[in-house]
Amino acid sequence: MFRRLSAEAFGTFWLVFGGCGSAVLAAGIPEVGIGYLGVSLAFGLTVLTMAYAVGGISGGHFNPAVSLGLAIAGRFAYKDLVPYWVAQLIGGIAGAAVLFIIASGTAGFVPAGFASNGYDLLSPGGYGLTAVLVAEVVLTAFFQIVILGSTAKAVPAGFAPIAIGLSLTLIHLISIPVSNTSVNPARSIAAAIFAQNGALGQVWLFIVAPLIGAAIGAAIWKYLLSPGETPANIGQVE
Amino acid sequence: MFRRLSAEAFGTFWLVFGGCGSAVLAAGIPEVGIGYLGVSLAFGLTVLTMAYAVGGISGGHFNPAVSLGLAIAGRFAYKDLVPYWVAQLIGGIAGAAVLFIIASGTAGFVPAGFASNGYDLLSPGGYGLTAVLVAEVVLTAFFQIVILGSTAKAVPAGFAPIAIGLSLTLIHLISIPVSNTSVNPARSIAAAIFAQNGALGQVWLFIVAPLIGAAIGAAIWKYLLSPGETPANIGQVE
Amino acid sequence: MFRRLSAEAFGTFWLVFGGCGSAVLAAGIPEVGIGYLGVSLAFGLTVLTMAYAVGGISGGHFNPAVSLGLAIAGRFAYKDLVPYWVAQLIGGIAGAAVLFIIASGTAGFVPAGFASNGYDLLSPGGYGLTAVLVAEVVLTAFFQIVILGSTAKAVPAGFAPIAIGLSLTLIHLISIPVSNTSVNPARSIAAAIFAQNGALGQVWLFIVAPLIGAAIGAAIWKYLLSPGETPANIGQVE
Amino acid sequence: MFRRLSAEAFGTFWLVFGGCGSAVLAAGIPEVGIGYLGVSLAFGLTVLTMAYAVGGISGGHFNPAVSLGLAIAGRFAYKDLVPYWVAQLIGGIAGAAVLFIIASGTAGFVPAGFASNGYDLLSPGGYGLTAVLVAEVVLTAFFQIVILGSTAKAVPAGFAPIAIGLSLTLIHLISIPVSNTSVNPARSIAAAIFAQNGALGQVWLFIVAPLIGAAIGAAIWKYLLSPGETPANIGQVE
Repeated sequence: MFRRLSAEAFGTFWLVFGGCGSAVLAAGIPEVGIGYLGVSLAFGLTVLTMAYAVGGISGGHFNPAVSLGLAIAGRFAYKDLVPYWVAQLIGGIAGAAVLFIIASGTAGFVPAGFASNGYDLLSPGGYGLTAVLVAEVVLTAFFQIVILGSTAKAVPAGFAPIAIGLSLTLIHLISIPVSNTSVNPARSIAAAIFAQNGALGQVWLFIVAPLIGAAIGAAIWKYLLSPGETPANIGQVE
Repeated sequence: MFRRLSAEAFGTFWLVFGGCGSAVLAAGIPEVGIGYLGVSLAFGLTVLTMAYAVGGISGGHFNPAVSLGLAIAGRFAYKDLVPYWVAQLIGGIAGAAVLFIIASGTAGFVPAGFASNGYDLLSPGGYGLTAVLVAEVVLTAFFQIVILGSTAKAVPAGFAPIAIGLSLTLIHLISIPVSNTSVNPARSIAAAIFAQNGALGQVWLFIVAPLIGAAIGAAIWKYLLSPGETPANIGQVE
Repeated sequence: MFRRLSAEAFGTFWLVFGGCGSAVLAAGIPEVGIGYLGVSLAFGLTVLTMAYAVGGISGGHFNPAVSLGLAIAGRFAYKDLVPYWVAQLIGGIAGAAVLFIIASGTAGFVPAGFASNGYDLLSPGGYGLTAVLVAEVVLTAFFQIVILGSTAKAVPAGFAPIAIGLSLTLIHLISIPVSNTSVNPARSIAAAIFAQNGALGQVWLFIVAPLIGAAIGAAIWKYLLSPGETPANIGQVE
Repeated sequence: MFRRLSAEAFGTFWLVFGGCGSAVLAAGIPEVGIGYLGVSLAFGLTVLTMAYAVGGISGGHFNPAVSLGLAIAGRFAYKDLVPYWVAQLIGGIAGAAVLFIIASGTAGFVPAGFASNGYDLLSPGGYGLTAVLVAEVVLTAFFQIVILGSTAKAVPAGFAPIAIGLSLTLIHLISIPVSNTSVNPARSIAAAIFAQNGALGQVWLFIVAPLIGAAIGAAIWKYLLSPGETPANIGQVE
């Protein structure tokens, strides 16, 4: 179990460090910056790469909402939920901390949002609570459907990390302007801790909405799309 | 059958919500916006991800023209065409509706084109009827050839969603300036319903041209490229 | 054989139509245009998608230099070289012709370079003959090495179109500013015919350099990297 | 052994020529340049493509730090380290030399940084020694974890080059503004030799930090994530 929790911690570290890191360090540079497209690619590739690297060890969730959805779908033991959540939080916060050390290593660094999520004044495009809530729930639901579907036993082994990682890229391509894109409570909490724009006061939404979305996605898969399937673990490429 | 139609509805929801969503929400933001390149990637990834997730359930068409082409090529039952078309339309329109709710959640939202397709004044680059017609027919024909070829039994299982999804990305890289890229009547109808620029008056072209293109592509595959092949279903990765 | 030549013609049509099409139609649009990055991705995806679709039929060369290199490496019959070259030229020129019809469908269209290749004044970045010659030879040599290596029997079936397509993307990321990137005589001839900037007068370089480069790459593979390997066909994913 | 060393030399040539080439030739062009996103993609694709092409011959390291990490993890013989390092250096320097020939083929060429790595005044974003050191160590450690994890025997054969190549893309998306991204002493030495901004005086950091990072990553994999695994070679897709 320690090995599995280590894998989740390192994976979530990479997700927060790499995804938020690309946003904080490289997105907004004039002319040559990577923009929202580069950040979308970065978030997706953190999951793609670590799902190949350690997916066979822990299942490669790196996301408390995904762990919940997998439990609802019968692919993950409920009793492992809390240990996974703790490991994901520790890894994510550590990733944000190391990112903070690097980001503050240049003159004139201002933490500001630090790639945190938000609505209203803290939404990149000024989107309100309802829009952000709907977006996060819908996107996490589809994320969960892609995870459950691409790791079903019927799909040839090995492709799931591509489908799952690139679905996270797609989700960011759609919704960075809306909420800065969460679909992952660990990522939102980690970034909010280091943000200095009041993001912690809104972080509840990015805990609640992804959990609801993942539950809905898992229910759609379980009762509508794949009734009676044989369980298999996410990213379990062994 | 209900399960297959659900898969088509969810897949087409994702295609319209994600593809048009990236265009409406994230494409045109100054400096960091994702541009046509990001929208192209988003459309392709909607298909790549859902083809892995539910392709084994419904075949993963998400597109009335593709369903027609598959029927012509002998890979899909003609009697299932109308149910599939209805499911695709319902899913696509629902996706556009949810997108509208989110997009209208920021001050100063103007629906305008809402990522709809058009020619002449409604073409992003001012392309006329003939250019748009030729582009949509040719692009859908090649889309259909890639679908039929990459899902042929000779190709190792599991790669088809990559080939098909990225061919949709490629198609958008070429033709967003021409027609805003359809190759999919369900996507065009769904966007036109919510557009407020008169796109509904031109939507006939984006029903007719993709259907003709898919039929041509299917005929090229069937009679020229692969006479006598054993049928297999698109994206059927089971 | 007619089926194989059809596959080569359609594949080269797609390469020229899609690759040059993205450059002519979508690269230079202010703010949201796809730029050299989008064009690089488009060229690569034309090969990736058609290699999956018809690679099992013709081998998926779509490039006279690649056919030569494969013959030198013992993977392709010399007697098929001329028929393949004719099919590739016909397909490529047809692709450029259809692109011309679409591109001329908007007011103020000026063919200008029409995505043709060139040196000195016709190089996008003003690169001279020597720089262009060295770039085209080196890049085609590595392209050929990637093709021969990724289709060797030792590599698991099905990945070659990804490696080959994305190597063409990489080649464009490096050299569009230098020569507008050829590594493919059929692509260069097709574009030059429709260009109105004098590209036809320089097209000899983009016939000679890729052929030399492919021959060098094939020799490096055959005598240095893989002496004694068992032959297999490019993209032959059957 | 000569065949293996040739493969390493050609692979590292391609990494430096392609990665640094995209940066020097194509990154900064106004409007249509590929930016840091394109350079990130280029570096990753050099590894992805050559890992498919010659990974089965040499293991596909193309990086002295990766060779060290593989030795520490028990996947590579210590006695082969120095020959591999020499081959990688020769290949990398040759790649930079050919790039220099091409790059100097246009009027007004100024070598300047020539895509070299640096800190303080030589960091693209002015990041100091500590930030650069932390970034390079952390990123190389994760690069090594992805390499070891994705090439473990449990993962289906053939996907490792995708995971490894795209992790290098991700690493560049994060850290080009910080250090211009090394994680590879051969790449740093090769670029520094041709730079005319004093990069050679800082190159020690980009030898030391990647080696330390790779060692840490290998230790994390060996003792924490995968105790007792059966060794397999990186990119060894045979």
